[in-house]
Amino acid sequence: MKELIVQKYGGSSVADPKRIMGVARRIIEYKKRGFDLVVVVSALGNTTDELIKLAKKINKEPPERELDMLLATGEQVSIALLAMAIHKLGMEAISFTGAQVGIITDRTHTKARILKIDTRRINEELKKDRIVIVAGFQGITEDEDITTLGRGGSDLTAVALAKVLKAKYCEIYSDVEGIYTADPSIVKDAVKLNYISYDEMLEMASLGAQVMQARSVEVAKKFNVIIHARSSFSNKVGTIICEGGKKDMEDVIVRAVTLTKDEAKITICDVPDKPGLAAKIFGSISQAGINVDMIVQNTSRNRITDISFTIHKDILNKALRITRQISKKIGAGEVFADSNVARVSIVGVGMRSHPGVAAKMFEALASKNINIEMISTSDISISCIIKKRHGILAVRAIHEKFGLGGKR
Amino acid sequence: MKELIVQKYGGSSVADPKRIMGVARRIIEYKKRGFDLVVVVSALGNTTDELIKLAKKINKEPPERELDMLLATGEQVSIALLAMAIHKLGMEAISFTGAQVGIITDRTHTKARILKIDTRRINEELKKDRIVIVAGFQGITEDEDITTLGRGGSDLTAVALAKVLKAKYCEIYSDVEGIYTADPSIVKDAVKLNYISYDEMLEMASLGAQVMQARSVEVAKKFNVIIHARSSFSNKVGTIICEGGKKDMEDVIVRAVTLTKDEAKITICDVPDKPGLAAKIFGSISQAGINVDMIVQNTSRNRITDISFTIHKDILNKALRITRQISKKIGAGEVFADSNVARVSIVGVGMRSHPGVAAKMFEALASKNINIEMISTSDISISCIIKKRHGILAVRAIHEKFGLGGKR
Repeated sequence: MKELIVQKYGGSSVADPKRIMGVARRIIEYKKRGFDLVVVVSALGNTTDELIKLAKKINKEPPERELDMLLATGEQVSIALLAMAIHKLGMEAISFTGAQVGIITDRTHTKARILKIDTRRINEELKKDRIVIVAGFQGITEDEDITTLGRGGSDLTAVALAKVLKAKYCEIYSDVEGIYTADPSIVKDAVKLNYISYDEMLEMASLGAQVMQARSVEVAKKFNVIIHARSSFSNKVGTIICEGGKKDMEDVIVRAVTLTKDEAKITICDVPDKPGLAAKIFGSISQAGINVDMIVQNTSRNRITDISFTIHKDILNKALRITRQISKKIGAGEVFADSNVARVSIVGVGMRSHPGVAAKMFEALASKNINIEMISTSDISISCIIKKRHGILAVRAIHEKFGLGGKR
Repeated sequence: MKELIVQKYGGSSVADPKRIMGVARRIIEYKKRGFDLVVVVSALGNTTDELIKLAKKINKEPPERELDMLLATGEQVSIALLAMAIHKLGMEAISFTGAQVGIITDRTHTKARILKIDTRRINEELKKDRIVIVAGFQGITEDEDITTLGRGGSDLTAVALAKVLKAKYCEIYSDVEGIYTADPSIVKDAVKLNYISYDEMLEMASLGAQVMQARSVEVAKKFNVIIHARSSFSNKVGTIICEGGKKDMEDVIVRAVTLTKDEAKITICDVPDKPGLAAKIFGSISQAGINVDMIVQNTSRNRITDISFTIHKDILNKALRITRQISKKIGAGEVFADSNVARVSIVGVGMRSHPGVAAKMFEALASKNINIEMISTSDISISCIIKKRHGILAVRAIHEKFGLGGKR
């Protein structure tokens, strides 16, 4: 039996007829090398954003079922066009919507979860030696309502298909060549990583590296699906995302440096040091639908403490209003906000067993006179909130301090 | 139980967000008047043509299954947006693709025929007092492949739904106010008809009146579905298409005059007068996928005859090539073509029982010195092929001769 590869092409890879033909040629190359192929495609270019804009012209809060009905057309256009392109080049391909291929989800419209995938139809077509093209980002409920899987959902479709079809690996194509030690537009000698572990990739995805959707990395980790993140505009090898612990991954302590500039910081001063207050504060905030990112609370002195947290800067006003109400209710003090902050982070599984990594990061910042406003650490990452204007300088300093640049 | 109306809105009626809101308001008006509503929508504006253009950029002869996959997205966009518009105005609506609503067709991609419709889901939603919106033009095979019903297929969806749901009637909305005695842009005093019979409408549809797809009129006739053809841009009553024989329909002999300018004429001279030659000629032509319109053969003299026929002018070259081959094979003479022709026709069930109608039409043409090149008659229509430059003059003369203009 042939080995199966699942490939996923993002919107920029199929933005126009010329690029679609390019993708078709790449697919056929793989086919000729003897692989079975299941290809997942996103909507052309920024179709999804344009459809959302169109919907909002009619209804600013469109019913989510109907929004899914609308958005699912984007990927349906892509799969049909890609199948036509492959036929044009003389090979047989057949396209399927999420519904046709039996990607069954729950009823959470606009961010549905995959419950199961029926592989019957795909396997039938693969047996006929056809290239199978599947619409990413979409599924169907048991009642046959169309659902979508949320931003970056095509990655999830690809990883899930790779799992149920027992693919050799899952290639995720985009317009970047892989995962880098830092954003190459900031750090000139940033290096493409050959490998990164699922855990590191997860941290990086949530820290603002846009290559992969976090949920699909989670699923890949859970089912041990090997991902190859690479560019559809070159033939270069990209970055393999797999289980950590490989020999050539061990000797690196810090894998990469990331920067996010879309956060804002809120500080509640003089919070009484009583049990249950933090729960009260963040309970009310989450009830308002606000996602909190970092939370820092220091040891209290004189039975009061300060609590700081970060949120997406777009919802700062709403978050501030709610936080002030809570602060009053619980008898805390003033509430400050700062939207001129950035978060710089280092990620690496190696730091678990290497002391002194945090100190080295702080030294790098100190050497450039950059003040640290908040610190938060996880098992495999350390993040500092700093002034936004220092963001780029900080990334460069840390990247250099850990010697991540150049040939590796 | 409430009475049900099926409404169908064409592409021009939903060309942009403003028009979609207008359609939503009209639907809600009906709902408030106490009707149950099933609404069929076409793709926005000329989306279908644009999708075809996009496909042809990739593959000039796209596989038809994939073309259907692509084109079906047009109506899916419309139904989602219309449902959003109705929600915006505070009423409940739910959209369905052809697949979801169970419009099962055969496998003839790009011009599939409806085999059956499963009304379960529609009836469930109507019971919940929701407005049901259905994508026109599309269906699904038993194998769950998406199909489309051919040009004007949304009309067919609407008529078929009206039949299976036992609707009171089926409203077909477009940008014209109904069926006229002649094209109002040619004949100033052309009058909108209050009624027209299925048979007359069928003749008119095939004679170039663009209001309704011929196949859907056939289906309406077969199942006696009453159609109301009207404009989505006004509240005026349009034209009722129903069984002939109503009292107020009787006194009219000629219902309307039509003109088509997209035909070309081919004449084969000196065809030997032997049995089976006409079958040979038109057999070869139809095998080449060419649709022949009018065919005229006169009584032979000296054991030879001339045979003329008309075809769509876009395929004249191909048809001419084939006709010349056949002519040689069967020992006929020269083959002429003329693409500067027009067909002017009169339609009316009354002419069955009224002698002299043809003579009156020919008189009208003679009075303007217009030469008739071919004549063909059916039970309820008479068509003449004339020079294209005389087309408009001919329509006006005939319209006047039969006194079709003015108040009726």
